[in-house]
Amino acid sequence: MTYRIEKDTMGEVRVPADKLWGAQTERSRNNFKIGTPASMPLEVVYGFAYLKKAAAYTNCELGVLDKEKRDLIAQVCDEILDGKHDDQFPLVIWQTGSGTQSNMNVNEVIANRAHQIAGGVIGEGEKTIQPNDDVNKSQSSNDTFPTGMHIAAYKKVLETTIPGVIQLRNTLHNKSIAFKDVVKIGRTHLMDATPLTLGQEFSGYVSQLDHGLKALESTLAHLSELALGGTAVGTGLNTPEGYDILVAKYIAEFTGLPFVTAENKFEALAAHDAIVETHGALKQIAVSLNKIANDIRMMASGPRSGIGEIIIPANEPGSSIMPGKVNPTQCEALTMVCAQVMGNDVAITIAGTQGHYELNVFKPIMAANILQSAQLIGDACVSFDENCAQGIEPNHAVIKELLNNSLMLVTALNTKIGYYKAAEIANTAHKNGTTLKEEAINLGYVSEEDYDEWVKPEDMVGSLK
Amino acid sequence: MTYRIEKDTMGEVRVPADKLWGAQTERSRNNFKIGTPASMPLEVVYGFAYLKKAAAYTNCELGVLDKEKRDLIAQVCDEILDGKHDDQFPLVIWQTGSGTQSNMNVNEVIANRAHQIAGGVIGEGEKTIQPNDDVNKSQSSNDTFPTGMHIAAYKKVLETTIPGVIQLRNTLHNKSIAFKDVVKIGRTHLMDATPLTLGQEFSGYVSQLDHGLKALESTLAHLSELALGGTAVGTGLNTPEGYDILVAKYIAEFTGLPFVTAENKFEALAAHDAIVETHGALKQIAVSLNKIANDIRMMASGPRSGIGEIIIPANEPGSSIMPGKVNPTQCEALTMVCAQVMGNDVAITIAGTQGHYELNVFKPIMAANILQSAQLIGDACVSFDENCAQGIEPNHAVIKELLNNSLMLVTALNTKIGYYKAAEIANTAHKNGTTLKEEAINLGYVSEEDYDEWVKPEDMVGSLK
Amino acid sequence: MTYRIEKDTMGEVRVPADKLWGAQTERSRNNFKIGTPASMPLEVVYGFAYLKKAAAYTNCELGVLDKEKRDLIAQVCDEILDGKHDDQFPLVIWQTGSGTQSNMNVNEVIANRAHQIAGGVIGEGEKTIQPNDDVNKSQSSNDTFPTGMHIAAYKKVLETTIPGVIQLRNTLHNKSIAFKDVVKIGRTHLMDATPLTLGQEFSGYVSQLDHGLKALESTLAHLSELALGGTAVGTGLNTPEGYDILVAKYIAEFTGLPFVTAENKFEALAAHDAIVETHGALKQIAVSLNKIANDIRMMASGPRSGIGEIIIPANEPGSSIMPGKVNPTQCEALTMVCAQVMGNDVAITIAGTQGHYELNVFKPIMAANILQSAQLIGDACVSFDENCAQGIEPNHAVIKELLNNSLMLVTALNTKIGYYKAAEIANTAHKNGTTLKEEAINLGYVSEEDYDEWVKPEDMVGSLK
Amino acid sequence: MTYRIEKDTMGEVRVPADKLWGAQTERSRNNFKIGTPASMPLEVVYGFAYLKKAAAYTNCELGVLDKEKRDLIAQVCDEILDGKHDDQFPLVIWQTGSGTQSNMNVNEVIANRAHQIAGGVIGEGEKTIQPNDDVNKSQSSNDTFPTGMHIAAYKKVLETTIPGVIQLRNTLHNKSIAFKDVVKIGRTHLMDATPLTLGQEFSGYVSQLDHGLKALESTLAHLSELALGGTAVGTGLNTPEGYDILVAKYIAEFTGLPFVTAENKFEALAAHDAIVETHGALKQIAVSLNKIANDIRMMASGPRSGIGEIIIPANEPGSSIMPGKVNPTQCEALTMVCAQVMGNDVAITIAGTQGHYELNVFKPIMAANILQSAQLIGDACVSFDENCAQGIEPNHAVIKELLNNSLMLVTALNTKIGYYKAAEIANTAHKNGTTLKEEAINLGYVSEEDYDEWVKPEDMVGSLK
Repeated sequence: MTYRIEKDTMGEVRVPADKLWGAQTERSRNNFKIGTPASMPLEVVYGFAYLKKAAAYTNCELGVLDKEKRDLIAQVCDEILDGKHDDQFPLVIWQTGSGTQSNMNVNEVIANRAHQIAGGVIGEGEKTIQPNDDVNKSQSSNDTFPTGMHIAAYKKVLETTIPGVIQLRNTLHNKSIAFKDVVKIGRTHLMDATPLTLGQEFSGYVSQLDHGLKALESTLAHLSELALGGTAVGTGLNTPEGYDILVAKYIAEFTGLPFVTAENKFEALAAHDAIVETHGALKQIAVSLNKIANDIRMMASGPRSGIGEIIIPANEPGSSIMPGKVNPTQCEALTMVCAQVMGNDVAITIAGTQGHYELNVFKPIMAANILQSAQLIGDACVSFDENCAQGIEPNHAVIKELLNNSLMLVTALNTKIGYYKAAEIANTAHKNGTTLKEEAINLGYVSEEDYDEWVKPEDMVGSLK
Repeated sequence: MTYRIEKDTMGEVRVPADKLWGAQTERSRNNFKIGTPASMPLEVVYGFAYLKKAAAYTNCELGVLDKEKRDLIAQVCDEILDGKHDDQFPLVIWQTGSGTQSNMNVNEVIANRAHQIAGGVIGEGEKTIQPNDDVNKSQSSNDTFPTGMHIAAYKKVLETTIPGVIQLRNTLHNKSIAFKDVVKIGRTHLMDATPLTLGQEFSGYVSQLDHGLKALESTLAHLSELALGGTAVGTGLNTPEGYDILVAKYIAEFTGLPFVTAENKFEALAAHDAIVETHGALKQIAVSLNKIANDIRMMASGPRSGIGEIIIPANEPGSSIMPGKVNPTQCEALTMVCAQVMGNDVAITIAGTQGHYELNVFKPIMAANILQSAQLIGDACVSFDENCAQGIEPNHAVIKELLNNSLMLVTALNTKIGYYKAAEIANTAHKNGTTLKEEAINLGYVSEEDYDEWVKPEDMVGSLK
Repeated sequence: MTYRIEKDTMGEVRVPADKLWGAQTERSRNNFKIGTPASMPLEVVYGFAYLKKAAAYTNCELGVLDKEKRDLIAQVCDEILDGKHDDQFPLVIWQTGSGTQSNMNVNEVIANRAHQIAGGVIGEGEKTIQPNDDVNKSQSSNDTFPTGMHIAAYKKVLETTIPGVIQLRNTLHNKSIAFKDVVKIGRTHLMDATPLTLGQEFSGYVSQLDHGLKALESTLAHLSELALGGTAVGTGLNTPEGYDILVAKYIAEFTGLPFVTAENKFEALAAHDAIVETHGALKQIAVSLNKIANDIRMMASGPRSGIGEIIIPANEPGSSIMPGKVNPTQCEALTMVCAQVMGNDVAITIAGTQGHYELNVFKPIMAANILQSAQLIGDACVSFDENCAQGIEPNHAVIKELLNNSLMLVTALNTKIGYYKAAEIANTAHKNGTTLKEEAINLGYVSEEDYDEWVKPEDMVGSLK
Repeated sequence: MTYRIEKDTMGEVRVPADKLWGAQTERSRNNFKIGTPASMPLEVVYGFAYLKKAAAYTNCELGVLDKEKRDLIAQVCDEILDGKHDDQFPLVIWQTGSGTQSNMNVNEVIANRAHQIAGGVIGEGEKTIQPNDDVNKSQSSNDTFPTGMHIAAYKKVLETTIPGVIQLRNTLHNKSIAFKDVVKIGRTHLMDATPLTLGQEFSGYVSQLDHGLKALESTLAHLSELALGGTAVGTGLNTPEGYDILVAKYIAEFTGLPFVTAENKFEALAAHDAIVETHGALKQIAVSLNKIANDIRMMASGPRSGIGEIIIPANEPGSSIMPGKVNPTQCEALTMVCAQVMGNDVAITIAGTQGHYELNVFKPIMAANILQSAQLIGDACVSFDENCAQGIEPNHAVIKELLNNSLMLVTALNTKIGYYKAAEIANTAHKNGTTLKEEAINLGYVSEEDYDEWVKPEDMVGSLK
């Protein structure tokens, strides 16, 4: 491999000749050999591209950057957003906790690439654009990284998580309507209970996801607040007047999302409660999804020795040793995602507590975890929807058999003969292995006519839709 | 001890003669000897008292309970709410996961106490009021427990948590104003950074708590939804028409809080995402408080060999061996509370995932944990406010000394001479143990006049308030 | 209420006249009104009683405390251990993070009670015994609290957790033997799989608990290390030579447990990884118990519309609305305990990370959480054992029916006709609702004789016991 | 792209022509588009390579596989272990929870590659080796995946985690010796306390890591137990006699690690407490490392307005806006790793609880999380060691100044004049801003000679080394 020399305030560094990054990126590569290379999410890099371009526009408009430099910076940012430089960001999550080196990585790539665009050769001549003085003008890692992180997280939640959850929610809603007349045995404590419809069960899932989506959307206002303009410690040192509001406006324009400048920049650098808040809502959705996936796999269990009330699609051979086996694999993938999101929530929570004075230095881990959770939930909902939920069908024969066997239909007699006598009927039938009707009549509490009139499963599901 | 005989559907049970509870409570006492007795929070019992009274009024209004029974039930509920029967609820959290036995405990106590009020002797004669058929009419444990849990949690958050957080927030806000001109060194990565005011630091804390309160309040709508009316599985079996809406209206009236009936009762029994959601916001506040308390104890550290920028009240001797020691004990209590809330969040999250079919059977643990968290945050904020925050004062001499020593004032020169030369000045002063001014002039980058004009800490804090 | 005046280094304090505690306890009561009063576990107080007595003996033996004082101190410690002063320890967990005030609470109670024993009246005359100079001699809160915490946790694990887990383990082992010939359908992914015996299933539970017990016991060596002798910062300042080893020997003697002095006192004050370690093992046991309880409730589900392979004891009426319902309530209590332990693990983990310099100031929360977890696991195992596990019986009829229906018996044909043909048989039988045997013969892959010879469930469970 | 047709029991699938995988891998790629592609850790694939080779040898030795097939399988396994087929494993973590598809991915790649080696063309002719009947012979996903997971985790812990922790531990130990005479102020509650040496502080870190390593090593016995031989449900169906013990012996031989067959295969498939256990120890080490990293960054804080007692290496420019700033970036990377490990612990804990009947279907998430944690801890320790710990030096001037200023040296007087008078001296000096000596003499409690004799910091650190 050939190298060129790059410099920063600490001296010279050898950098691979074919790479656009500079001295500080290379130092970080060498100093933080922790885990998989290039683990810093590209979404954060893209968030930086938006903000660097917005900063260039703002600096230019406020008279501290000339138009040529603005356009060069913007052009490279657009290239980055087009995915043309994905291999120029080799750094890991486990670097400086302010993400300084990822900020410098972006600054260096922009500066070197701009030099190329301007006709220069990287490493030769005075840089057309300076990474610190131009690209990073009116900025600090301390306000850019949280800004990039908010842009990335907001976009991911909006573009991946919410559509994925809505897609699944809509399918479940359609199933809820389709199954509205399928009366089945209810189960509480995993034990037989009074009946309801399969549609009612699914309506509960829909309601969970609706509440979850509402909770998630409630957090977006906090997440839309951007730290940019706070610079080093939140005071906005070295920014021109009006910079913070204008730069947020440009970011909103470039992303098409309603970003605003954070009212309080000291919080915005020193604490990342907005990430904690949004991830809390992701975790809530994970809790809901876990319940839904568990129910579905239990209802689909069998095919002969389980519950078997619903049939789910058979997407792949289920066993490398048991021929003909089909498994609820989408439920398994989804619940694993839920467990990961719950773990990520703890990582984010701990990271969120550890700001000191003017800076929280757990930014990269917070960014990485929220992006992973948001991606996984969105993807897993789509996968679950397309490969499982859409194909769910009731197994009418099993549903009917399990319903009619149940002793809990006796509950319908409570208001007729009282809880105690009803219990006696159920207990006797249970002991004797007989039916409720037989024992109700045997015990002399109900006539056959009354029993048939009073104990109708389809009448027991109706008070609430 | 003397006993009387009580009966339920499973047979006879000996119950302490002087207790109001009945057979099922006594069974639970014997079957669940787990942890501290009577650990089920009294707040849940009070939640039950509200709902049992509301159910009696609703049942009466809808024609399924007579007025005498209604009034007897209501009278006992009022006695319970007055704290007259606190020792009649001996059950533990670690019982049946639907809280059935706590529901029956309340039913039994109401029935037996009503019998007394009606002139009867407990254990003698036909019960004036039946625990299942009267007190529990139109109800199930499955909808009453979550209703009681929501009432208890909502009240606790509203009456304890929010006022406590607001009290602390207001003190911090006042300090933020009082300290608005106290210029001090900023710190990022725990290292010296550019200056800001002490008031600005405190404004960040205020902003965190404001966001936290907003997040918490956003969750209350979900928490205000009551399961009552869903009965056994969410269908509302055995309830008169209109029951669910009316009973919520009565609960709202009796509590003075905006409770409504849950739109979807299947969710309301089978999942407790509302508890997950509200606790998520409590956890977010814990994250904020942890940051605030950590900052304050670090800034107050010393008195001679620490940071020492602020002085906090000395409330108690700090050491049993080191005479004259004073410690940031309120910060310690508060951060311990934060750690507990973060742990409770995981317990609630796990519990929330484990609903099966029509019922989540982790209700008592969810109730206990959210009530503890809500109580602890509220109490700890008040304690921290009264015994620490209100008494915080700047240590002006230390603040000034640390500010003037700092090398990071050099940042003011970035926009004058560029980042690289500024870095050279700082590095040289650091190496030589000299001042920035000396080296700025020595290196020939800045004249004395310019230095004095350009490097003014008080001018470095001003772009953003 | 009447009061007397007590003094400490900060001045006078009014204390309830009938209480043995002194000024610092009263200050703490007033300064930390957080959560339930007296929440500091009594087990910690008892741990202090052991160590104060041991310190008195050691100080006496090493010539720095006279014998009269030693005996007075020891006498009060014995009274405390007899439970005679339980109401003299009113402090909460949420106090100073070193537990200084609980240490002083013990010191003050011992001093005042000793004064009484010596014929004095509390609050009158010179104290016979000084709380700091005598009771606390050669000690600091910083080494006493972790010592008391280790004593309390070690005892609880040994006296409550381990016996409880062993009791349950033994019952499960007995069931494993009793059920060794009960061939049943296996289930993987909740779906029908190849058969095994019910005894084999239970043997897996036993193996989990055996591994858990081994893991727990492995942590006890670390927990047996005592901080006492480190005093303020770990250097042992103000202790006589040989103190640390001797005082651990006395504690070992008084408790009958193998306590030793910590080799490194700096760790022992500044970090509580031993608590993290032991609680990690408790969490592992919770993970195991959760699996076991879940299996049992699923296998017991029904009675008519669930799995129903085992029958568990009916201990209480299961529903306030559904007559005759019986629920797996012990499973529910146990899994709630597991969720709490997992939450507590996070609280302890976070607390454990936050030591600074010479002291971790999250001691009380760590003590409270490990004691709760250790108690709950022990109690819940006993409750589960006595009220559920011992009574588990197979439902032979159901087990047989579910076994014989299963399509997964086809796996026995893999080695005879290959995986692909076996799969075809299973798929065809599944599609047609027929039996494996029918389709095996229809498809011409197996003769009837071979089928009967090759597909015997009882032969499919035997390779491993 | 060109495709070929592959088949499984569900029918035909188009597979990219240049890939070695088959139908089931391709189905999984299409059915689980969740998160980053190919996220299943390669370490798991390598674990599979070891076990497939061992199974082939065992099957051959026990007479159920011929030698030619054995050698073909072994040859491909060796190629996989040489990293020659890393791009043939495209599946994600978020697949079926038993890892069936990753097992089949390996089976398919081995079968197709063997076909090539045997001179065939993939997709043409009868496969020389069958993925299910040959490569997977005497195996199931249910026993292979946990076996691969144990092999991968054991190797990672042994080859990366433990050496990394030991490397850092040794450096800290060397520092502890090097700094053994550097007397400095101690700090408890972040407040000035009695002195100790810098070496003593570092010895505490060493002791933490020693305990952590011991705890980690204690878990390895459980992790060394392999599920292989249990096949579908733990009974060992379709395995030749003696298979389980022999296959573990071969795995031990091929890996050079002390693997053994699990005594109880039912546990080994249905629960992964061994992963929970080992990760618990990783979490404990994370707790220790967090404390150490926090201490070091606080002690290194400054350079002028912080504590500044130690100097850490300056590895990179610390700020994109503040020239000359140097930050404790290795501490930040390390503590982020710790937070991630604590989050992963919760993910693993939750996953570990959710086994049902004969199978835990959270295997891939458990594998991925433990491998990440083990890698990150090992790497981060090495990075921290080489880029920070090795370069730590005391700042003697600051240490001396902070020591001599401290009021807590007064503790040395406790045993001479009692706690109360000592406290009075400290309080007076604090109030007056004077020295202890001045006030000790002014108050008449100590003569100058005695003071100089009694209050010597170097004498206050010596009782315990």
